[in-house]
Amino acid sequence: MALERLQDTLGQLAGKVGGLTTQTRHPLDPLTEDEIAIAVSVVKERKSDVIFNAVTLLEPKKADLRTWVESGDAELPRMADVIASSKGNKIYDVLVDIKAKAVVRWEEPKDVYPGITMEDLMVVEEIVRKDPKVIEQCGILGIPPTDMHKVYCDPWTIGYDERFTDGSRLQQALMYYRPNVDDLQYTYPLDFCPIYNIETQEIIHIDVPEKRRPLNKAPPTNYDAESIQKEIGLRDDLKPIHITQPEGVSFKLDGRTIDWQKWNFHIGFNYREGIVLSNVTFNDRGNVRPVFWRISLAEMVVPYGNPDHPHHRKHAFDLGEYGAGYMTNPLAMGCDCKGAIHYLDASFVRKNGEPYTIKNAICIHEEDDGILFKHTDFRDESSTTTRARKLIISQIFTAGNYEYCIYWIMHQDGVIQLEVKLTGILSTYALAPGESAAPYGTEVYPGVNAHHHQHLFCLRLDPSIDGHANTVFEVDAVASDAPVGSRENRYGNAFMARKTPLQTMAAGISDYNPSRTWDIANTNKLNPHSGNPVSYKLVSREVPGLMPKEGSLVWNRAGFARHAVHVTRHADEQQFPAGRHVPQHSGEPSQGLPAWIAANGPASIANEDIVVWHTFGVTHFPSPEDYPIMPAEPMSVLLRPRNFFAQNPCLDVPPSYSSTPSGVREGRRAFRGGA
Amino acid sequence: MALERLQDTLGQLAGKVGGLTTQTRHPLDPLTEDEIAIAVSVVKERKSDVIFNAVTLLEPKKADLRTWVESGDAELPRMADVIASSKGNKIYDVLVDIKAKAVVRWEEPKDVYPGITMEDLMVVEEIVRKDPKVIEQCGILGIPPTDMHKVYCDPWTIGYDERFTDGSRLQQALMYYRPNVDDLQYTYPLDFCPIYNIETQEIIHIDVPEKRRPLNKAPPTNYDAESIQKEIGLRDDLKPIHITQPEGVSFKLDGRTIDWQKWNFHIGFNYREGIVLSNVTFNDRGNVRPVFWRISLAEMVVPYGNPDHPHHRKHAFDLGEYGAGYMTNPLAMGCDCKGAIHYLDASFVRKNGEPYTIKNAICIHEEDDGILFKHTDFRDESSTTTRARKLIISQIFTAGNYEYCIYWIMHQDGVIQLEVKLTGILSTYALAPGESAAPYGTEVYPGVNAHHHQHLFCLRLDPSIDGHANTVFEVDAVASDAPVGSRENRYGNAFMARKTPLQTMAAGISDYNPSRTWDIANTNKLNPHSGNPVSYKLVSREVPGLMPKEGSLVWNRAGFARHAVHVTRHADEQQFPAGRHVPQHSGEPSQGLPAWIAANGPASIANEDIVVWHTFGVTHFPSPEDYPIMPAEPMSVLLRPRNFFAQNPCLDVPPSYSSTPSGVREGRRAFRGGA
Repeated sequence: MALERLQDTLGQLAGKVGGLTTQTRHPLDPLTEDEIAIAVSVVKERKSDVIFNAVTLLEPKKADLRTWVESGDAELPRMADVIASSKGNKIYDVLVDIKAKAVVRWEEPKDVYPGITMEDLMVVEEIVRKDPKVIEQCGILGIPPTDMHKVYCDPWTIGYDERFTDGSRLQQALMYYRPNVDDLQYTYPLDFCPIYNIETQEIIHIDVPEKRRPLNKAPPTNYDAESIQKEIGLRDDLKPIHITQPEGVSFKLDGRTIDWQKWNFHIGFNYREGIVLSNVTFNDRGNVRPVFWRISLAEMVVPYGNPDHPHHRKHAFDLGEYGAGYMTNPLAMGCDCKGAIHYLDASFVRKNGEPYTIKNAICIHEEDDGILFKHTDFRDESSTTTRARKLIISQIFTAGNYEYCIYWIMHQDGVIQLEVKLTGILSTYALAPGESAAPYGTEVYPGVNAHHHQHLFCLRLDPSIDGHANTVFEVDAVASDAPVGSRENRYGNAFMARKTPLQTMAAGISDYNPSRTWDIANTNKLNPHSGNPVSYKLVSREVPGLMPKEGSLVWNRAGFARHAVHVTRHADEQQFPAGRHVPQHSGEPSQGLPAWIAANGPASIANEDIVVWHTFGVTHFPSPEDYPIMPAEPMSVLLRPRNFFAQNPCLDVPPSYSSTPSGVREGRRAFRGGA
Repeated sequence: MALERLQDTLGQLAGKVGGLTTQTRHPLDPLTEDEIAIAVSVVKERKSDVIFNAVTLLEPKKADLRTWVESGDAELPRMADVIASSKGNKIYDVLVDIKAKAVVRWEEPKDVYPGITMEDLMVVEEIVRKDPKVIEQCGILGIPPTDMHKVYCDPWTIGYDERFTDGSRLQQALMYYRPNVDDLQYTYPLDFCPIYNIETQEIIHIDVPEKRRPLNKAPPTNYDAESIQKEIGLRDDLKPIHITQPEGVSFKLDGRTIDWQKWNFHIGFNYREGIVLSNVTFNDRGNVRPVFWRISLAEMVVPYGNPDHPHHRKHAFDLGEYGAGYMTNPLAMGCDCKGAIHYLDASFVRKNGEPYTIKNAICIHEEDDGILFKHTDFRDESSTTTRARKLIISQIFTAGNYEYCIYWIMHQDGVIQLEVKLTGILSTYALAPGESAAPYGTEVYPGVNAHHHQHLFCLRLDPSIDGHANTVFEVDAVASDAPVGSRENRYGNAFMARKTPLQTMAAGISDYNPSRTWDIANTNKLNPHSGNPVSYKLVSREVPGLMPKEGSLVWNRAGFARHAVHVTRHADEQQFPAGRHVPQHSGEPSQGLPAWIAANGPASIANEDIVVWHTFGVTHFPSPEDYPIMPAEPMSVLLRPRNFFAQNPCLDVPPSYSSTPSGVREGRRAFRGGA
């Protein structure tokens, strides 16, 4: 064991040396604490009493960045995209040139509501506990005023509530109770919902259901190690698995640009999308070929299926309303990942303008990935087996009750995989004795109603498949039209891929079916063997469709979730498919994707600089297995090279075993590669 | 490095001690070599000149085995299921009582054709090379008679050919050429197809296309280490990852019954299905609960999409026509798996009746599986992270050109996963200069046409969800019928799970859509919290549907592939959904599932002893990336406990880190678990 520990330590050290970071500045590097401080001081010079909501890098315009990538040396300006507010719910959209220390743009948009920061969230609970009307409601449920320290709340964005549209920034407080400070509050939901005004720090209203639900009487059910040790004991029959990399990692980091197994890309991070991968290229035998210009999760929505007021407000846009960066976890070695780990930090702004840093926000590590390819010749038992390695860039963010684990995975065969694991705790509501949770929820524990919900993620893909003029094809597996017995299809087995190019933004909409994939292709460049356009195929099988009906509040607000795929002409400012300022927008008219398409429907998207928006996810009907904490549920989206390479691009990965027919016959020693 | 090697060795030794096998006899243990020899001698006593096709365990009748499992001590007879043949294409279906050394049943069925064994396959190439008509055809393509040693063939079952129905057992030979003994022959397909008679060992016919395609002139493209070293060099930038288990494995084997992390089941194996998991139970806090009585891959079909004669014959039933057990690879440490590995061997019969054994046919090992569950309380940063472990029972079989890697994976949260990875080589056909491979194939390398195809697997699930009376429900996520704005659905977000029980065999058919899963439930037992029937949910997202049209040859022969799910009443003899003897059957009438359903349509399948048949897979449009060897393409089917457990069943897995709110506040040391 001591030896293993030593090896772990050596592995970490080697990881640090192997993945040595040299601080080369890249135009997409997130703002440093110093840069954030400059942006803050520039804004404060113009208006001293602002509260900061976000200070983040405004990425250079694509045209400028392309020039920089291609020529390399011209310095691009560093621009801070600032969202701030001041009394009277005034909002400021400001652009600051960091080097010039100057405001470049100062806008005061009306009727918009910036996202809810962690600081906005953190203060609500104490205010709720002191509010007389909340204390009164707690009293009705049997919680005495002396027990208000046992009352908790998950503050959520209010989504949209048509009763409150005076410009106030609001949150709704989902209410809970803990018998003891270490008990899980989700077992004790309270049935009322206070509405909180961010600026005045007041409870302005409480939604109280007609039919009251008393405080749950069930015993606590907890998942922390102390509780489990006491209640059921921890199992002791798992022998350790050690994963070590004594020679360090196989990647090199130059600043935030990573080089690994022919892949090269920049790892960005912002408060909203979290991890961003940019200028993703693959070294195809010396030819560095662009694949994706920029990839990120750009939005998500989590609609709940209970129609009773006010549960319809539960449809969080976790990225647009809170931010996957703001909510990200600091990750720790030996806990969230194994082997030689490299971390990157993330810096943000506090309300008061101070910069701060989340340590280890991004984890970079390699994993063994089983068999990469294998074949045995049945004639002679000559055989080759090659093991796979994968590179994982990951973050985990906590959105109130839920945890989202985001893994961007690069494979040696040119596949890019986005894996999302859902874990954490179900968002729960009270259930009265004798009341049924059906049909819109499940009683996962006595008195605990977990409403059905969906997690729908919007993947934003800015492709650069051998260049920026790309085209998306719907690809459907279809049987031949020729009937069984006909000359063209005598035995009835004929089938083919029907490829339909998406031509205009208005027509650049595609729904899912189980026989469908999408090719993102460069029709100007054909594969030397197949003659097909070089392409990356979007393979996605977790595409449940949006459950809220057409014309519903969620349908209006989450336009991106209406279809599996949208394709737009690239525009620098079109980054967020539910709009830039998401909270408290009615969705009438819809922001983001539907608005862009409506404004520019006839624009060609064939052989143009395009952006592909893909919505995928799961529909979650909770069950008691998900409580008190959910075993991680994984889902994946794949981007697979098809007709992109002239042959298998990972043939040169050393096999663990390889013999040839003549080698077997002549008794030559087979090739044996490393671990 | 030396240290790592030593550790690997220690780990293996520990694995052997930890997973110590005691030879307890279980009624489902495959026949030993001795038992095979007994069966052979019993058959030979009655008829001395037979050729053995298969000698395999006939599993005890379910009723008897249930009694054995429940009472434990009664000894069940060991029965050998023998398929043999003799001159004149006579077939023998024989049942031998091993202990009594007696024939229990002797049948001589007409018009059936047993599977093709490895020995049947291995002899074809030499005969083809010597056949004058084949030599003539090779000459037409420019291969001189002196080069016939450079001619190769992949012998395939003929599938069904209406021209040859005289009772002869046939194979078709897909023809190839190697310029050099170590060159991949799939780069040099020959355009004609000899038909081979197994009994007479003659070529009885050659299918020659009207339009000839000359021998490919393209240079070889190989993937073995020697070739890659010479041609492009092996990459040298992968640092090793060591996976060690110095204290050995966490499972215990009693004979072939494995106990791991509350799971307990028997690991069977037969020539046809390969791995079979039986009597799968989960220890739910002391209560050993049955989950599945028997799980296996029972059949598969690989239809190719090119309608030109004779390519329609390319639709291998790799299990029913060849056998996933017969074709299984011997696995070797450090090559196919990592860590502490335990292997099981597999014994079969040769044509002449000699038993033989494939060493290391089954691999059993554990892997770290990332995060099992995690939550951080945003209020106070109290946090718990628990890592997952999984147990993998795997085999890899080579079906001519393709490799199928089969992983049966048990998870700590009660999930059973079947992962299949496809790798190996594409089956190729010749392409004339200037000829297009479209629309039914892709030119993956000059002159190499890889036809589109599907891989459709049939998973056979004999459930025992808390008992044998089970019911299957279609579960569809559906929006409420109530319109947006109505009293019941004011905001339009209402949705629910619509659960439809399948009632009879005739109606026990269900197609796939992206919002559908299936619950296998025991309606006699309700979850104590949710009140829903205890169940396992079949979650499968790779369900492309059968491409060959209704009424086509493949549709007729592969009845199981017409729908995603069939449910039948359990019957001991209904094991193979395309029939017991698959080769050379026309599919008119369809064997297996369609026949059973037609014979017993009104039989109830609700709250009965049922079997669930699930067809899943992929549609494969080849691309040059798949050549000369395919990077492994994974797909998975999940069986998830839903409403089965009263809570998360893996809460007692020791977390790697766990703190509580009071612990954080009071500065107590957090719980830190092992690696």
